Amino acid sequence: MTHSVAILGASGYTGAELVRLIATHPGLKVRALSADRKAGMTMAEVFPHLRHIDLPPLQTIDELDFAGIDICFCALPHATSQAVISELPDTLKIVDLSADFRLRDPADYEKWYGKPHAAPALQKEAVYGLTEFYREEIRAARLVAGTGCNAATGQFSLIPPIRAGVIGLDDIVIDMKCGVSGAGRSLKENLLHAELSEGWYAYGTGGGHRHLGEFDQEFSKAAGRPVEVQFTPHLIPGNRGIFAASYVSGEPRAVHAALAEAYADEPFIEVLPLGAIPQTKHVRGSNFVHIGVVAERAAGRTTIFAVIDNLTKGSSGQAIQNANLMLGHDETAGLMLAPLYP
Amino acid sequence: MTHSVAILGASGYTGAELVRLIATHPGLKVRALSADRKAGMTMAEVFPHLRHIDLPPLQTIDELDFAGIDICFCALPHATSQAVISELPDTLKIVDLSADFRLRDPADYEKWYGKPHAAPALQKEAVYGLTEFYREEIRAARLVAGTGCNAATGQFSLIPPIRAGVIGLDDIVIDMKCGVSGAGRSLKENLLHAELSEGWYAYGTGGGHRHLGEFDQEFSKAAGRPVEVQFTPHLIPGNRGIFAASYVSGEPRAVHAALAEAYADEPFIEVLPLGAIPQTKHVRGSNFVHIGVVAERAAGRTTIFAVIDNLTKGSSGQAIQNANLMLGHDETAGLMLAPLYP
Amino acid sequence: MTHSVAILGASGYTGAELVRLIATHPGLKVRALSADRKAGMTMAEVFPHLRHIDLPPLQTIDELDFAGIDICFCALPHATSQAVISELPDTLKIVDLSADFRLRDPADYEKWYGKPHAAPALQKEAVYGLTEFYREEIRAARLVAGTGCNAATGQFSLIPPIRAGVIGLDDIVIDMKCGVSGAGRSLKENLLHAELSEGWYAYGTGGGHRHLGEFDQEFSKAAGRPVEVQFTPHLIPGNRGIFAASYVSGEPRAVHAALAEAYADEPFIEVLPLGAIPQTKHVRGSNFVHIGVVAERAAGRTTIFAVIDNLTKGSSGQAIQNANLMLGHDETAGLMLAPLYP
Amino acid sequence: MTHSVAILGASGYTGAELVRLIATHPGLKVRALSADRKAGMTMAEVFPHLRHIDLPPLQTIDELDFAGIDICFCALPHATSQAVISELPDTLKIVDLSADFRLRDPADYEKWYGKPHAAPALQKEAVYGLTEFYREEIRAARLVAGTGCNAATGQFSLIPPIRAGVIGLDDIVIDMKCGVSGAGRSLKENLLHAELSEGWYAYGTGGGHRHLGEFDQEFSKAAGRPVEVQFTPHLIPGNRGIFAASYVSGEPRAVHAALAEAYADEPFIEVLPLGAIPQTKHVRGSNFVHIGVVAERAAGRTTIFAVIDNLTKGSSGQAIQNANLMLGHDETAGLMLAPLYP
Repeated sequence: MTHSVAILGASGYTGAELVRLIATHPGLKVRALSADRKAGMTMAEVFPHLRHIDLPPLQTIDELDFAGIDICFCALPHATSQAVISELPDTLKIVDLSADFRLRDPADYEKWYGKPHAAPALQKEAVYGLTEFYREEIRAARLVAGTGCNAATGQFSLIPPIRAGVIGLDDIVIDMKCGVSGAGRSLKENLLHAELSEGWYAYGTGGGHRHLGEFDQEFSKAAGRPVEVQFTPHLIPGNRGIFAASYVSGEPRAVHAALAEAYADEPFIEVLPLGAIPQTKHVRGSNFVHIGVVAERAAGRTTIFAVIDNLTKGSSGQAIQNANLMLGHDETAGLMLAPLYP
Repeated sequence: MTHSVAILGASGYTGAELVRLIATHPGLKVRALSADRKAGMTMAEVFPHLRHIDLPPLQTIDELDFAGIDICFCALPHATSQAVISELPDTLKIVDLSADFRLRDPADYEKWYGKPHAAPALQKEAVYGLTEFYREEIRAARLVAGTGCNAATGQFSLIPPIRAGVIGLDDIVIDMKCGVSGAGRSLKENLLHAELSEGWYAYGTGGGHRHLGEFDQEFSKAAGRPVEVQFTPHLIPGNRGIFAASYVSGEPRAVHAALAEAYADEPFIEVLPLGAIPQTKHVRGSNFVHIGVVAERAAGRTTIFAVIDNLTKGSSGQAIQNANLMLGHDETAGLMLAPLYP
Repeated sequence: MTHSVAILGASGYTGAELVRLIATHPGLKVRALSADRKAGMTMAEVFPHLRHIDLPPLQTIDELDFAGIDICFCALPHATSQAVISELPDTLKIVDLSADFRLRDPADYEKWYGKPHAAPALQKEAVYGLTEFYREEIRAARLVAGTGCNAATGQFSLIPPIRAGVIGLDDIVIDMKCGVSGAGRSLKENLLHAELSEGWYAYGTGGGHRHLGEFDQEFSKAAGRPVEVQFTPHLIPGNRGIFAASYVSGEPRAVHAALAEAYADEPFIEVLPLGAIPQTKHVRGSNFVHIGVVAERAAGRTTIFAVIDNLTKGSSGQAIQNANLMLGHDETAGLMLAPLYP
Repeated sequence: MTHSVAILGASGYTGAELVRLIATHPGLKVRALSADRKAGMTMAEVFPHLRHIDLPPLQTIDELDFAGIDICFCALPHATSQAVISELPDTLKIVDLSADFRLRDPADYEKWYGKPHAAPALQKEAVYGLTEFYREEIRAARLVAGTGCNAATGQFSLIPPIRAGVIGLDDIVIDMKCGVSGAGRSLKENLLHAELSEGWYAYGTGGGHRHLGEFDQEFSKAAGRPVEVQFTPHLIPGNRGIFAASYVSGEPRAVHAALAEAYADEPFIEVLPLGAIPQTKHVRGSNFVHIGVVAERAAGRTTIFAVIDNLTKGSSGQAIQNANLMLGHDETAGLMLAPLYP
């Protein structure tokens, strides 16, 4: 059976990634596309790499006809999403890729995003979209909140050992190295090629990165008590990929076992042999996650490495994985593309 | 129906690209893999980005069992291929990705490759593998010779206008800008990241590049008289992609029309509107070709731009497209993956 | 003797490059800096790589005091320059890095820049700043017009063989591969890292690039009759560097001899042995030019390759070289820094 | 006064960097160059970016005449250095850039490098070359051991707060992101452009990186008791630069004050305002170090960021800084070149 898809905010990178992945999905077909400033253009004009695909024109959201649409992916900017989704037919299944519905507690939302939530009822309804940990809830959900890409990478590393009780909870340090596409297609000086290439550095330091809101929420839930990790992302001169190094206390073998066991049946998560190191390029363009565990020289110290492609497993691939569950497709449908290498 | 595939030389980039593409092909299954120095390893060790795929182990060619194999892709180094293929069962369908069978005339082979051909009977049998121009011969062939990646790009640009008689034949200049993966995974100083990134330059200059042998053969055939173009490739700090600028005499509209007409029904070739410029990144990781035509300010001068991914349409994608024809699959099977962007 | 320098438009790449080079110049000292939107900031805030240098604050042009300033470098946007320079004290020596004073004929300016020149008297006074060809005029000039970076690269390749009469004038094709810093620090989508890296393509095609105005002016002057070349620049995923391939008719040895002879005494121009190929990275960050000449397989066909760093020899280095002449310093003062490699 | 320099191992990146820097040094002149496999070639053939500099030919070490040489820079591979230096005239001042003389304790050397030291007397004589902490010893030394580039970056971050007693000593975690030139010009698969670009990952994990030997030695000395940090380097797709994030316990203001005070008079070290983040590109090609300190959200947690160019301050620039002290030149002579940006 083929379901009809609408993509709101199709002119950004996550929108284009949705179209790329859906193009070879056996059960999804794009029927409506919205863009704001680029309404009236074709997708081929905005993203010429998609010109071989037969696609509807870019329209404003107001122009779209949602009759016959089974599922709507919202790839809109943060804050815009909550206003737009409030106006959509409430029978429509929705996967939101913005940050608007990731935090369950309105107070948390206000703390991290600086203003009250505009659609608290929807916020309450939304299911957090990290598939491997919310599979059953997602299957039953109408509105799923895609996770932050950094937030996903950290959780893949740490949720199983936290749940298994094999790592300390008060001295977790996460150091991430992130490709630039996570910042989107926005015109900012620091995203220029001449500024970024051949240089790298930390950003969002000092506990200020908003994905900490997700870490706090999910790690505390997994631990059954408040957990606040330390987190520093870095901008790397590459387009796709997140490499997370999580420095923890705990026995390496126990940590490795907790991860291997938790992910034993997961189709997209590969736990490497103890001591092996993943690389971002080994998952680039794919929905896979590679995880490695290393024993430090100090007794009881372990480092967990995880890699994802921020646009795929960190965003649009995750969204389709969730849509597959919501619509009754095979969870891996359209998502088994191998990474592009080199 | 599923056909069984052997890949010889699976530890190089074209071998890995074959595995990547076949992984989502509905009618092909990899049953045997050879590697020379890396025999005994798994593909996941050599290319960890393929670790989620169930694959046979890497063996030496001598260890392989060809019973039950329907088609063999030879991704071996130049000169090795002709020796190996001579020893393969002569009932096996073969797509060779090396340069060994591209030139039909033994004298041409010796001129460009510096020694006599070791398998002249096979050389005679081989069909030149540029699908769009040899479709019927390939369908009937047992042995198909994959083309040079630069050679393919130049021919996509020039064969239709040459055939249509709309460009001059004696003043064609082709300037190409090539990503580094075309040079393979070999350990050469100029291929190091520290040497290549942030710099670019011409190589194989002065009429010395071996793909000129293919240009001479195919352009002369298309024109019905000898044609010798001028060709200069450049190495660019990027991994995948070839951008060809062909400077010709001829009327822009006539050139554009000849290309648009020739490729009107081609599933992988997109001729852009007159004046539009293709980009390598718009075909990266895909089997597509984008072609643009521009009118120069001087009357009667035209420039033709063409882009391909050297590892896909320039090599492994082309090989699968040919295999599809040889085995009776839909020509586009396994090859409709959209480019990876960004 | 130390001369005092003002830099107008110091917040762009050419402004920063001027500061970098002047920092080790024995006879120049920066005394005034202007920026428009960034007035009020320090140079260390705008360009932290310069924070170890003692510099004046960024001010608006109106706030600057030109008393005591010996020479002013104008690194302002095109069209702004002519308005600003008209208002400067007419005793001030000026090197303008914009396009405003490169074309001597008001009609040519209007043709290429789309509106009449606002300071025709200054336009008449300005000397074209390609040092190697206008050395004596520059020495005596008050106002020197820095050349286009592409225009410089093409002229270094072609002026000597044109003057020597050893190449054909009616079939010159120049294909250039340009780093992105030539486009400046402006916020344009195609300059984003995610858009540019891993892809390359032609731009300004079809005779539309404004540097053709300089080519027409200077090549015609060198030839003593109208010359209109064909020119196609390409954007390359690298920050600094221009690689020019000029395809010409002419005997390779004669072309090589013309270049070698013309540049025999030039401190910044290296003509490589016949057949050798320059690389952009071999001049990156320096004021040097490397030139190579190659014989094509077709008799009477020659290709000339030239490389420069667009920000140094193509802009700010050239500007200082001219200032050295204007102020009586050694021509190479402050400019003998070796390229940065790797 | 001009001193005569010999460089052993001039065909590697640190050799080329020494030549680049010495080219504008007022008091040093290169008089002898050695290379092993490339003996007989000119430096211009091995590194065309240096072709404008008048240099002696590359010879084998045996062919070199050390009469008249004042100082010798040894840029030889690890283990080779100790054998070669033993044979040099013992009146010659030497700066060794290898790892051979960095560890003072023969047992430490054997532990980290896997075999006994071949020149224990020299090992005893050698002074550790981190200029800012061994200035007086270096001034008097005959043999100075250049530090590891990672080791230098970590020490710049941590020695002052360790000495000041403002950070915990038992939970220091250093996460580094390193450009590829630190691995030299060696032909290894993982250093190829196609392998490295667009991907990043950790290496030398689990306490196995040899620079830990230097950290243990120097941090323990600074603390007055054994200190063993946790250290994970990452390979980044860039050529030059190291970014170190050191995660420590301690009050941010006290840490910042310790660093600011320690480096107040240092010509090459810039401590940024509290909360500011350095970038590798802001020191690229220069001898400068930028250091930033950030307060984490957890009370008593601080992160220290430091950047250097591994080939300059991390190796060849540091070597010249030390040579300046050993020869009585101004410590900054030849080293005030501003970074190259962009």
